[in-house]
Amino acid sequence: MARTASLSGFPEWLPEERLVELHVLDTLRKVFELHGFSSIETRAVETVGQLLRKGEIDKEVYGLSRLQDDEGDESKAGKHDPHALALHFDLTVPFARYVVENAGYLAFPFRRYQIQKVWRGERPQEGRAREFTQADIDVVGDGDLPFRYDVEIALVIAEALSALPIPDFRLRINNRKLAEGFYRGIGLDDTAGVLRSIDKLEKIGAAKVAELLKTELGASDEQAQAALSLAGIRTEDTSFVAQVRALGVTNDLLEEGLDELEQVIAAAVQRAPGKVVADLSIARGLDYYTGTVVETVLVGHEQLGSICSGGRYDALASKGNRKFPGVGLSIGVTRLVSRILSQDLAKASRSVPTAVLVALTDDDSWGAAQDVAAQLRGRGIATEVAAKAEKFGKQIKFADRRGIPFVWFTDDDGKHQVKDIRSGVQVDADPASWAPADEDLSVQVTTALHASAQPA
Amino acid sequence: MARTASLSGFPEWLPEERLVELHVLDTLRKVFELHGFSSIETRAVETVGQLLRKGEIDKEVYGLSRLQDDEGDESKAGKHDPHALALHFDLTVPFARYVVENAGYLAFPFRRYQIQKVWRGERPQEGRAREFTQADIDVVGDGDLPFRYDVEIALVIAEALSALPIPDFRLRINNRKLAEGFYRGIGLDDTAGVLRSIDKLEKIGAAKVAELLKTELGASDEQAQAALSLAGIRTEDTSFVAQVRALGVTNDLLEEGLDELEQVIAAAVQRAPGKVVADLSIARGLDYYTGTVVETVLVGHEQLGSICSGGRYDALASKGNRKFPGVGLSIGVTRLVSRILSQDLAKASRSVPTAVLVALTDDDSWGAAQDVAAQLRGRGIATEVAAKAEKFGKQIKFADRRGIPFVWFTDDDGKHQVKDIRSGVQVDADPASWAPADEDLSVQVTTALHASAQPA
Repeated sequence: MARTASLSGFPEWLPEERLVELHVLDTLRKVFELHGFSSIETRAVETVGQLLRKGEIDKEVYGLSRLQDDEGDESKAGKHDPHALALHFDLTVPFARYVVENAGYLAFPFRRYQIQKVWRGERPQEGRAREFTQADIDVVGDGDLPFRYDVEIALVIAEALSALPIPDFRLRINNRKLAEGFYRGIGLDDTAGVLRSIDKLEKIGAAKVAELLKTELGASDEQAQAALSLAGIRTEDTSFVAQVRALGVTNDLLEEGLDELEQVIAAAVQRAPGKVVADLSIARGLDYYTGTVVETVLVGHEQLGSICSGGRYDALASKGNRKFPGVGLSIGVTRLVSRILSQDLAKASRSVPTAVLVALTDDDSWGAAQDVAAQLRGRGIATEVAAKAEKFGKQIKFADRRGIPFVWFTDDDGKHQVKDIRSGVQVDADPASWAPADEDLSVQVTTALHASAQPA
Repeated sequence: MARTASLSGFPEWLPEERLVELHVLDTLRKVFELHGFSSIETRAVETVGQLLRKGEIDKEVYGLSRLQDDEGDESKAGKHDPHALALHFDLTVPFARYVVENAGYLAFPFRRYQIQKVWRGERPQEGRAREFTQADIDVVGDGDLPFRYDVEIALVIAEALSALPIPDFRLRINNRKLAEGFYRGIGLDDTAGVLRSIDKLEKIGAAKVAELLKTELGASDEQAQAALSLAGIRTEDTSFVAQVRALGVTNDLLEEGLDELEQVIAAAVQRAPGKVVADLSIARGLDYYTGTVVETVLVGHEQLGSICSGGRYDALASKGNRKFPGVGLSIGVTRLVSRILSQDLAKASRSVPTAVLVALTDDDSWGAAQDVAAQLRGRGIATEVAAKAEKFGKQIKFADRRGIPFVWFTDDDGKHQVKDIRSGVQVDADPASWAPADEDLSVQVTTALHASAQPA
């Protein structure tokens, strides 16, 4: 499975693969709604000015222009025209715009989930597509947003990921205040620069990061070493606090960050044991994060990259003096589904929603067959009717080819029988009362037992 | 409700409006799956060459280009570059491409539904957006596709529309073979030209269409009159057959079309009484239809335009000599939802998924409150926990503002009570067993009783 996309970076699923994706999407929606998150969608299109507010990402944006622009009312998309239209590259920036525009209609703190496609004109590779689906949850406040929502968001995501047919995972959590306070405490004031360097740790290693810190940010050996020591701290409980303190740095912002991260980790140890680690190397490239930052790895699939990222942003959305601080996390649905499919981690119990094919005895029996089908559908049993009165063997073969487990027969006397074509067992049945076993009623998506994680 | 979109032609819904849209989408999905249609999605992007295969639509297409194209590996979208990328403007053309590409993996006749956004760079107006959601069902065969699927598709759509919170509707059905055979039978061989003129009947009236037929297609008075007589036939049963025969035209293709349309209408009279009319004025502009053609109006909202259109296409998809004839219908979800919202035809029973807010007695009770919430969620009750231990009155006000019907209290002795904040009734409750009434468990979307159809 997972055939090559006919357009590189734009994956499309076969129907049985789509069933796995639908299961993932339905599961996420269910968990999000149980936690009181409202669904919204934003338009796929933003103005270039809106998208580029935070800088850096313009390389990846797809601009729009009408192919035959004969009315002159829309300009071609270009990075220099802030009113030009472009496709959104994430769901956070559009959500911030939506909140500001609709602030008068929303009840704050506003909890929403948003599951949509986003587009990035990047070079495609495994785990990185040009069109992909994200599933985001965020809580946004009006003026302020209690820190408790940072804790809650992490717990909701841990619950949502636990419900998916995926390998074990770890939320790796850090806090920008902690890191920035620490850097200031050791005398490195270009905290964004330090974060950018630390963000490269996994790619280029500690020695090269130390080199960067010294050459580009003027850090001393000691400062570089201290920054790397901080980034080396990783604990599954709140013992990171003592480890940071042992580095002997004091700073108010550092204390605030330590306290926040401790709250998240303490709650996670209790409510999502084993799913969360404090990882002080996590930086997140995007510069709108102001506190909690999160990345998530699938255990045994670390090279896939983060499958869920996000954090706290206190200044992304504002309307005059009114601020809308938020915290949110975004699940990379396409990245997850691609991995599930390419490694057969889960599969659908059948390839179509149909449970029953009603066979035709002769061509005139189509109406009667539709009556049987309507009765079954009325009780929630997905049913289709054969289009041609071919020999029963052919109609059974048709059901088999489509992956339909049951075939229904009605003889000239109106006697009904249903055959489980997997076992060959055929029994008398009443369209008003017969039902398949629960596991055959609708498509089940189950984790493959033989699934083995690919070593990192 | 239905505020002005901040970008003309790109509607966005408030959370409580989105609940209505979700209800429509969930209902359609359920009906489609009960009839054995598989979900697929295709990429939002097609090549310009693929999109323009059928001509005429290029004015409406949005082309894509990367804002900062510094790698030179992608050209700017342009109508003269068939490899350039553009957003799809419907779901039929992408589906045809998908079928051809994946023919080796699909079991035919292949039944699929597809619910996605499409984009058209048209001038926005009521009922016509630039970004909108379509919900399509199609059946595609390999080589041939029995006509019975034309009948079935119409019945499935009638059932799906009947399940939605919308006013009464009529599927207006015609058949291209019938019309083309008739035109040939009266000596008008440019049947596409005649269809294009007849398609303008509702807009410009019979007199001007007769003029067009005479000036542009060289029709005689008698020919123009005959074509208009045919277009004037509209019956709720199969009596259209006799009315056409009374016009005295004979042609083999006409006979074939009469027989097909009779089959659809006969089945509809029986299985979807009152929902379908034979309307011989229906032409459909797009030229890939080869038999059955359908448009659908909401009764009392005719000026909204068709809310569900489609038909039989025998030659849209092919791979060498291999043909994949299909039949399908497309529901204009955004057009329907816009109308439901702007005229308050239906509404959600509350504005958030949350049924219960667990209040905090003091700040330290957050963990215990999460335990209560987890118990409720475990039984399918959407629950959120207050973030701050404010006075109970304030926490109740918060629930009220968010539209949450129940607030849960736990006192210091661990005694639980739940308050219905609409009635004010507060009762003892056990988090392991308490449940709201069925109608409060999840959001209900109901047709407004006072909804009055707008006169046409």
